[in-house]
Amino acid sequence: MTTIKAYAAYDAETPLRPYSFDRKELGAKQVQIEILYSGVCHSDIHTAKGDWGPAIYPLVPGHEIVGRITAVGSEVTKFKIGELAGVGCFVDSCRTCPSCKSGEEQFCEEGMTGTYNSYERGTKIPTYGGYSTSITVDEDYTLHISDKLELSAVAPLLCAGITTYSPLRYLKVGKGHKVGVLGLGGLGHMAVKFAVSFGAEVTMLSHSPSKEADAKKLGAHHFALTSDAATMDSLANKFDFILNTVSAKHDYNAYLNLLNTNGTMIIVGVPTAPAEIPAITLILKRRKIMGSLIGGIAETQEMLDYCAEHNITSDVEVIDMSYINEAYERMNKSDVKYRFVIDMASLK
Amino acid sequence: MTTIKAYAAYDAETPLRPYSFDRKELGAKQVQIEILYSGVCHSDIHTAKGDWGPAIYPLVPGHEIVGRITAVGSEVTKFKIGELAGVGCFVDSCRTCPSCKSGEEQFCEEGMTGTYNSYERGTKIPTYGGYSTSITVDEDYTLHISDKLELSAVAPLLCAGITTYSPLRYLKVGKGHKVGVLGLGGLGHMAVKFAVSFGAEVTMLSHSPSKEADAKKLGAHHFALTSDAATMDSLANKFDFILNTVSAKHDYNAYLNLLNTNGTMIIVGVPTAPAEIPAITLILKRRKIMGSLIGGIAETQEMLDYCAEHNITSDVEVIDMSYINEAYERMNKSDVKYRFVIDMASLK
Repeated sequence: MTTIKAYAAYDAETPLRPYSFDRKELGAKQVQIEILYSGVCHSDIHTAKGDWGPAIYPLVPGHEIVGRITAVGSEVTKFKIGELAGVGCFVDSCRTCPSCKSGEEQFCEEGMTGTYNSYERGTKIPTYGGYSTSITVDEDYTLHISDKLELSAVAPLLCAGITTYSPLRYLKVGKGHKVGVLGLGGLGHMAVKFAVSFGAEVTMLSHSPSKEADAKKLGAHHFALTSDAATMDSLANKFDFILNTVSAKHDYNAYLNLLNTNGTMIIVGVPTAPAEIPAITLILKRRKIMGSLIGGIAETQEMLDYCAEHNITSDVEVIDMSYINEAYERMNKSDVKYRFVIDMASLK
Repeated sequence: MTTIKAYAAYDAETPLRPYSFDRKELGAKQVQIEILYSGVCHSDIHTAKGDWGPAIYPLVPGHEIVGRITAVGSEVTKFKIGELAGVGCFVDSCRTCPSCKSGEEQFCEEGMTGTYNSYERGTKIPTYGGYSTSITVDEDYTLHISDKLELSAVAPLLCAGITTYSPLRYLKVGKGHKVGVLGLGGLGHMAVKFAVSFGAEVTMLSHSPSKEADAKKLGAHHFALTSDAATMDSLANKFDFILNTVSAKHDYNAYLNLLNTNGTMIIVGVPTAPAEIPAITLILKRRKIMGSLIGGIAETQEMLDYCAEHNITSDVEVIDMSYINEAYERMNKSDVKYRFVIDMASLK
């Protein structure tokens, strides 16, 4: 047994601190990955703090994982030792329900097995995420990672990337469409990059004038200050799609009114309080609201390949593992452009 | 000038009472229709009472109109004297915006001209609806009505019919789909008939056990008592579509949870208070909420032709014009199966 170093939340209150656990035996279909980079997602904070229900402590967060294969099980066919590999938000699912069979494991009827804060299927063995030197995952839930891109900047694609790529693809967003992106953070900045890359005309919707230069740098064609009533009036009925990444409580209705006939608001942010939605805003223009949840393994691979081909990565700030608690504090103040990524070499 | 008899609301408070007005001159593209039957829609009550904004009094309600052509303008080509004709919720629109050009006049960017409580385009001449012996309408906003069906039972198709037909068609609802219909009233009973006719497996969702026999009579395959927690639990994730016709305040979330992955709740009821919708309910199964508003002229004609071919009409209670205020009171108590229709002969 080799000991694996990690950082864990031990409870909902105290800062994350070092943790270690024994490496699990490598299954026949599993690959062992030396983790090189692990992105830091806002979900990590919520889960570690138990905001979304009881957590399994000690909890090793991290579901934006990029690394290198260091061992393969006897029946592994898709990966070789030395290859790059990635792991996203889940590491298993039932494999038999209609969602799993259609490659949308994120909607598994039995519930996907989270990369952390879950139990390995049919056991009470907890799963541990990316804030760790190594992870062992079924090859079917492991992604191929191109060596063309900066690896640290690839890690956030595994969650922030697929979360924004998937709904834009599902709705066939592209040339001729006007897309608003609400919120410029980890998700928002990827949404801008993808929507622009798909050929849409993209407007960053933000209440902070300071975001204008950043939005333009990311490729947004327009910037709209949502705190300005005249701007909001001028944008009424203008968008085909609004990708709403905001997780703070906000007035959905103000943005629904910016959708044209048949327009869709895509919800990927999770405010803790329900949003108030007047039926008439939807009815008068046949508007839609749609939720979206990461993507399946096949689509995540498609997204990674697309990013390698089109040179799309996340804008990241690489940090040492020991900086994680300060990183959390800064994320809670939206003080990051746009994703912290842990260099796991700092944990060795 | 001929005088036209009607019933009107004179203000928001008092009962409707007789009214009369002079017939307008027949325009070159207009048809004059002797009204035979006029359906009574819940919107009539709300509009007459000023619930949805200031009303233009005296207000002659009624937008489910069936009658016979009695005169045609010099340039009319689509109708002949003596033919049956229908008028729905609007009698004009801008005709030049993308929505009008694509045959979805209900989404006219300038706003459609309502059959009542509007002004004729570019004038201050009020439009008067179906609680009247005659109406004069542009032929392009007039529908052909088959003589195969009971005319009184056709009238409600012009609003209740198209309101439920249109979203089911838009979403291509049919064989293999599980559809829930929420609320068994004027809209709900038509939703059941259409969804069944399109080949879907239809469940009536109602909090009232007394509705079960009625729902089955209308063709619903199943009945689910929404006040029963065990029933609701058993229906979690079961429907591809829920057509929500309820206009009383209710908990959308309880019904959103009945939608399967990719399921859509169609909103056609207009509760006065906004609904509270938690993002996570939509996100976890890529669920959607969509509003829908009547239908365009072309689709309304398609619906009427479909009904004639498939022998679909509304279940109605035919009343005299003088009964209208009692009818309103009974509608406010949901005491009608399922639509009052005024026999306009009673007004002559």
